Amino acid sequence: MGLSVIESGGVTTPKGYLASGVVSGLKASGAEDLALLVSEVDATVAGVFTANRFAAAPVVYDREIVGSGELVRAVVVNSGNANACTGEQGRRDVVATADFAGELLGVPGKQVLVSSTGRIGVPLPMDKIRAGVRAAVSALSADGGGAAARAIMTTDTRPKSVAVRIELDGKTVHVGGTTKGAGMIAPRLVGGVPHATMLSYLTTDAAVDSELLSGCLAKAVATSFNRITVDGDTSTNDTVLLLANGMARNATLTACGADADRFCAAVTHVAQHLAREMVLDGEGVTRFVEVNVTGAASAADAELCAAAIANSPLCKTAWFGADPNWGRILCAAGYSGAVFDPAHVNLDYEGLPVVRGGMDAGTPETELVAAIDQREFRIDLELGNGPGQHTVWTCDLTYEYVKINADYHT
Amino acid sequence: MGLSVIESGGVTTPKGYLASGVVSGLKASGAEDLALLVSEVDATVAGVFTANRFAAAPVVYDREIVGSGELVRAVVVNSGNANACTGEQGRRDVVATADFAGELLGVPGKQVLVSSTGRIGVPLPMDKIRAGVRAAVSALSADGGGAAARAIMTTDTRPKSVAVRIELDGKTVHVGGTTKGAGMIAPRLVGGVPHATMLSYLTTDAAVDSELLSGCLAKAVATSFNRITVDGDTSTNDTVLLLANGMARNATLTACGADADRFCAAVTHVAQHLAREMVLDGEGVTRFVEVNVTGAASAADAELCAAAIANSPLCKTAWFGADPNWGRILCAAGYSGAVFDPAHVNLDYEGLPVVRGGMDAGTPETELVAAIDQREFRIDLELGNGPGQHTVWTCDLTYEYVKINADYHT
Repeated sequence: MGLSVIESGGVTTPKGYLASGVVSGLKASGAEDLALLVSEVDATVAGVFTANRFAAAPVVYDREIVGSGELVRAVVVNSGNANACTGEQGRRDVVATADFAGELLGVPGKQVLVSSTGRIGVPLPMDKIRAGVRAAVSALSADGGGAAARAIMTTDTRPKSVAVRIELDGKTVHVGGTTKGAGMIAPRLVGGVPHATMLSYLTTDAAVDSELLSGCLAKAVATSFNRITVDGDTSTNDTVLLLANGMARNATLTACGADADRFCAAVTHVAQHLAREMVLDGEGVTRFVEVNVTGAASAADAELCAAAIANSPLCKTAWFGADPNWGRILCAAGYSGAVFDPAHVNLDYEGLPVVRGGMDAGTPETELVAAIDQREFRIDLELGNGPGQHTVWTCDLTYEYVKINADYHT
Repeated sequence: MGLSVIESGGVTTPKGYLASGVVSGLKASGAEDLALLVSEVDATVAGVFTANRFAAAPVVYDREIVGSGELVRAVVVNSGNANACTGEQGRRDVVATADFAGELLGVPGKQVLVSSTGRIGVPLPMDKIRAGVRAAVSALSADGGGAAARAIMTTDTRPKSVAVRIELDGKTVHVGGTTKGAGMIAPRLVGGVPHATMLSYLTTDAAVDSELLSGCLAKAVATSFNRITVDGDTSTNDTVLLLANGMARNATLTACGADADRFCAAVTHVAQHLAREMVLDGEGVTRFVEVNVTGAASAADAELCAAAIANSPLCKTAWFGADPNWGRILCAAGYSGAVFDPAHVNLDYEGLPVVRGGMDAGTPETELVAAIDQREFRIDLELGNGPGQHTVWTCDLTYEYVKINADYHT
């Protein structure tokens, strides 16, 4: 239905967005660590945020701005310092960052959103932040999406961006996005409200009303960022923002309009692309695994079961070793809390029967090894107990994950 | 109050117990893989078992025997094959094993309990099991506890046994025990009923009525095996059995009797010793970490919080690297689901202040590193929100854990 993917696209692919990424000196490595995203005109914004009780100061601030219904103009993102567990000082630093950027951009500070990622518990060095914001404003460019994507990285090995194009009522509309991982990545699989698990920024030049924008973002997150896990750790700083500036000059999309579904599908496409990329670039990851649970008593049961498998260190290390050890998968399903009869359980790897009726299906081990000794593979677990379904995207657990995280701080 | 620890003791330290450990050929390594424990007279038995829905055939069988109130005489344990996900054949093999051992020992098969641990989904090779049981009966000895402790090992690096001695009403009473780990080890921290997470066998020569025996085991498990985690994976085969044969000739202990508490304390001492040993010998473990959460709104909240920290890959890898990165601990507390105000949270490492009021306490990093760069250390997290308390014993996550579990199957 006319959705074109622009692989080289990003947050500045939609009309009317400028971005930049600069070095402010927060990272010992000297890499880019401050990104700025600006809309040339006021933009409607939707956002979802971490459920972590230690939500960082910028998360608390952004949640207020998004909740107020305020139109926004810019987002400042720093990597290298999370501004979490920093108390009142943390809050003051967020407001000072927003006000300073607003002043340079000629907009009110409350139209500037702020995100941070990195070390927890250390106050922001505000002299570096101010110098960085100043440099980032000077460097703003209509093709700055790539630079911004690099500046938000922490343990990511590569920037992650994409854009799509659709036609709506004779107008060309774009949705772009960029994200960073690559550790402290986990869905909160139990609970009704979708929420994010990393830093991700989506832009569109479509004109969209606030209600539809929030609805599309919630729907997109539920089947993308909220279905991934790298290590089961849900961060203090997770943020997804979606800005819509209307510069495509389409008739404003509303929840009841004919094009709402097509627009939401485009947002979901971008979010899913970025979520997959985040897992593939997860810390130390060598394999991407789709865990698809069907036949659960409820969707919540399917989530419990898929999450237990996706976060099990024994499953994840077996995948690293291309070990088809299905006992670990059934074991994780068994302790997940999901309700089912073991005698009705079937399991497939890449469509090959592994377990039938809770027992070995007899497929030769060499075939099972070949099915999972791949960069990406799929596991289907059918519980035979109802209509509940859920999918999680996860990865293996490797030496490199341990190395990265035993060495991160020092 | 007169509890003596016998470090070299084990399941045959109490009077009237014989044990053995032999090679039946289940393990490719050729190591001992079949243990037999026999009481010379009928024994009262209590047991707790895995909550995993894929409970293995021997677990289902033992649960029935223990539930029936039957007096028992023996336990057969094989390592190298879990007899889990083996359907009706698995059940028949358990019964055949019990009947065969009973025949050789001259007791009914229903007085013989059976445990298995190892690979999931492969039927037991019954010819090997029968030959092993025959050899184990021949090898029975009053000092066979050490041999039995070796034969139940899988990825354990050393056998784990202990015994204690107390005086009850002028009689000398012993409690002994042995256990195996070392992966798929996790408490089920949420839920009312204590249950086990590994294979563990406790013996006593005390005369104890059935009700008190069950009560003592439940209490002991709640503060020992149920408070440990290695990898958060709860096995299909977890079993703890406690046999009491009365050969110390004390007046039978009952729940209302004066000595009940002292006897229970002895059982708890043995269980805690074995649980600690299990974590210290966990797969790839280099550090033992006590996570003590206080000030939670409820005990359940404290459990949620302690479990999230104890199972967080980011906390566990940081401990491996002796990295005092307290942000990861607060982050895990924050997503655990426990309810508290971040501004009231305090954290200590080995009594050193790390966080006060949700922020850095200012203790020099070198001191924090020294506090945790140890084989064993303690973390105290105070949530400032009520009387709820819980302790978990956990460990670090290392390269060696990944290596063991990526290579286990092949």
